[in-house]
Amino acid sequence: MRARGFRFELTARDGEARSGRLETPHGRVETPAFMPVATLGAVRGVAAADLRDLGAQIVLANTYHLHERPGEDVVERAGGLHGFTGWRGPWLTDSGGFQVTSLADRMRIDEEGVTFASPVDGRQRVLTPERAVAIQQALGADLAMALDECRPPRPAARAPRPGREGRGDPGIADRAAMQRTLRWGERCQKARTRPDQALLGIVQGGADAALRRESARGTAALGFDGYAHGGLGLGENPELRCDLITEVHAVLPADAPRYLMGIGTPSDLVRAIERGVDLFDCVIPTRHARHGVLFSAAGRLAIRNARFKEDPSPPDPGCDCPTCRDHGRAYLRHLFHVNEMLGGRLASLHNLRFYLRLLERARAAIGRGEFPSFRDEVLESDAVAQN
Amino acid sequence: MRARGFRFELTARDGEARSGRLETPHGRVETPAFMPVATLGAVRGVAAADLRDLGAQIVLANTYHLHERPGEDVVERAGGLHGFTGWRGPWLTDSGGFQVTSLADRMRIDEEGVTFASPVDGRQRVLTPERAVAIQQALGADLAMALDECRPPRPAARAPRPGREGRGDPGIADRAAMQRTLRWGERCQKARTRPDQALLGIVQGGADAALRRESARGTAALGFDGYAHGGLGLGENPELRCDLITEVHAVLPADAPRYLMGIGTPSDLVRAIERGVDLFDCVIPTRHARHGVLFSAAGRLAIRNARFKEDPSPPDPGCDCPTCRDHGRAYLRHLFHVNEMLGGRLASLHNLRFYLRLLERARAAIGRGEFPSFRDEVLESDAVAQN
Repeated sequence: MRARGFRFELTARDGEARSGRLETPHGRVETPAFMPVATLGAVRGVAAADLRDLGAQIVLANTYHLHERPGEDVVERAGGLHGFTGWRGPWLTDSGGFQVTSLADRMRIDEEGVTFASPVDGRQRVLTPERAVAIQQALGADLAMALDECRPPRPAARAPRPGREGRGDPGIADRAAMQRTLRWGERCQKARTRPDQALLGIVQGGADAALRRESARGTAALGFDGYAHGGLGLGENPELRCDLITEVHAVLPADAPRYLMGIGTPSDLVRAIERGVDLFDCVIPTRHARHGVLFSAAGRLAIRNARFKEDPSPPDPGCDCPTCRDHGRAYLRHLFHVNEMLGGRLASLHNLRFYLRLLERARAAIGRGEFPSFRDEVLESDAVAQN
Repeated sequence: MRARGFRFELTARDGEARSGRLETPHGRVETPAFMPVATLGAVRGVAAADLRDLGAQIVLANTYHLHERPGEDVVERAGGLHGFTGWRGPWLTDSGGFQVTSLADRMRIDEEGVTFASPVDGRQRVLTPERAVAIQQALGADLAMALDECRPPRPAARAPRPGREGRGDPGIADRAAMQRTLRWGERCQKARTRPDQALLGIVQGGADAALRRESARGTAALGFDGYAHGGLGLGENPELRCDLITEVHAVLPADAPRYLMGIGTPSDLVRAIERGVDLFDCVIPTRHARHGVLFSAAGRLAIRNARFKEDPSPPDPGCDCPTCRDHGRAYLRHLFHVNEMLGGRLASLHNLRFYLRLLERARAAIGRGEFPSFRDEVLESDAVAQN
């Protein structure tokens, strides 16, 4: 099954980098695009009106968290995520699989699905492919994710030995999880009943290129509306990650959107855009913000530091966000020093705008055929820490 | 000394209730007016741009807190509160006296001033009338407050015996503190060097009407730019408070603004407006908001309660705030249940707008000569708790 009301078209290419346009039932997404993370239906400290003002196009929510509280039934009766939260543009939900395996207690995976104890009420629950689709259909996101088997990253993938990246003998467990992910993907496809919700399949296979290519071929054969790279961003070498992305893109249909889940820094993003990724989500801009780390064209600012005590300049002088328009670094430093929650909010607004503007600039650079020089500029400034 | 760049004119009266216009170097304040409280230079979770959007006209900051962090020298070099915080409209600062006596350790009051140990760094400090003026001049508020002697409320004032309200023998300490407040007020007047900052004197005298009248006469004789009721809102009977306000207003010059410090609920406000108060500040709207209590035309909503779990209506259907525009009660309840800081922010925006709109409506009712029916409407709805 393919969803109705969606269309993805490429508008420009620069090498493997590409810009495009994803039409959804709740609006258009210019790609490559960054999705702010609204874990529980809210980006921390940031409301729907703020996201609109910042230029967000699409927002991600975590299925597992919303399943626990307030429950997908409550969200569904409120008109889905769009009605419940007030963000009426496009939504993407994850499958819940990654959250369950990383957060839940007494977790056990078998062919049926993931059995776990809720950390909220202690009750045993089972997340199956069918259940993941049903919950996401109730939440009503425009884009949903198939359930995949998320394995903890292998030590080998975390710190590959020289000369062995992407080769070597894949773990038996990696192969088994990849194959089970294909079977679960097929069950997700069969379970769909909402024609207005796109479903994206997930490529697994650990750090082994051959395994990930095999996964991509199998996933593409299931005819999803888009495809995601799963199991990356868990500590692996960035060069290896880029190689694995390239290998998988060679297999995936070029006319479907490609999503790199949960990644990453500005450098990670431009490296992945260079290899043809269209969609991103990451908690880095908001999590860094709450810890007082602000992104800027001149590098990252640890805003609590003494050097900013009397610095009247905005966090990033070239930035057009509400924080930079109204406030200086000295005020932000003060807010963090007195633990005023406005500090985390203002920093989050700034960092989100920084990311959204990064993607705007990437799209423009692709359109001009100047993506490589834009990438170099980002890699250079992202390496600077203003401490 | 009287400040330059200020003008206060009355525009309408309805009984003792009055509306007016206070011109300051940073803009006009239509009175009666409510001042949101930005203790540390920020209303919790609310930025300068939000205050503008909500229709705030003037904001209050706490001198003592800002003296501790970041220090008035830092604020002064950033261009005062206007430059430091981004709120470029009128500011009022308190004298620091009340905060010192309620928050600081090892506090001792003598004729010179208040000696105390800073709770931030433990060092001994002295707040004198001259120091209170100097700190407030460095902070650069449009309106500053004279240092008064703040005594803890007497049990008699908290729960007066029937037939003894406002009469009886005032405590010797109340008289002494009132007289010292007059001497400190004179020292504050002499210490002023900034012609662009108004200074308001404070009436004290505990719960005794004669003592407060004497205080008002003495304070008025010092020729301040405005006058405040001090030492109220500390648990006394609201009827007694209203009587004390009336007694003092009979003595104060009618053409100067009158400020009831730190008070109160919507009912408290309309009762005081009825007796001719022009300025208010209070933490109730924002503190209640952070605890999940929202004001509405139909009474107060304890938003965490189960009855709101699937209630899609805005907190207050007649409200024009950003929270009511975009979000329903079910979403707000969810945010409070998952401890998402956006809940406190959205509730704060709503409650602040509720208070600011209450004052807008009071001004309009005075202009129409219909204040009594407006007062009755507020007293009735404020008595309802929607639990």
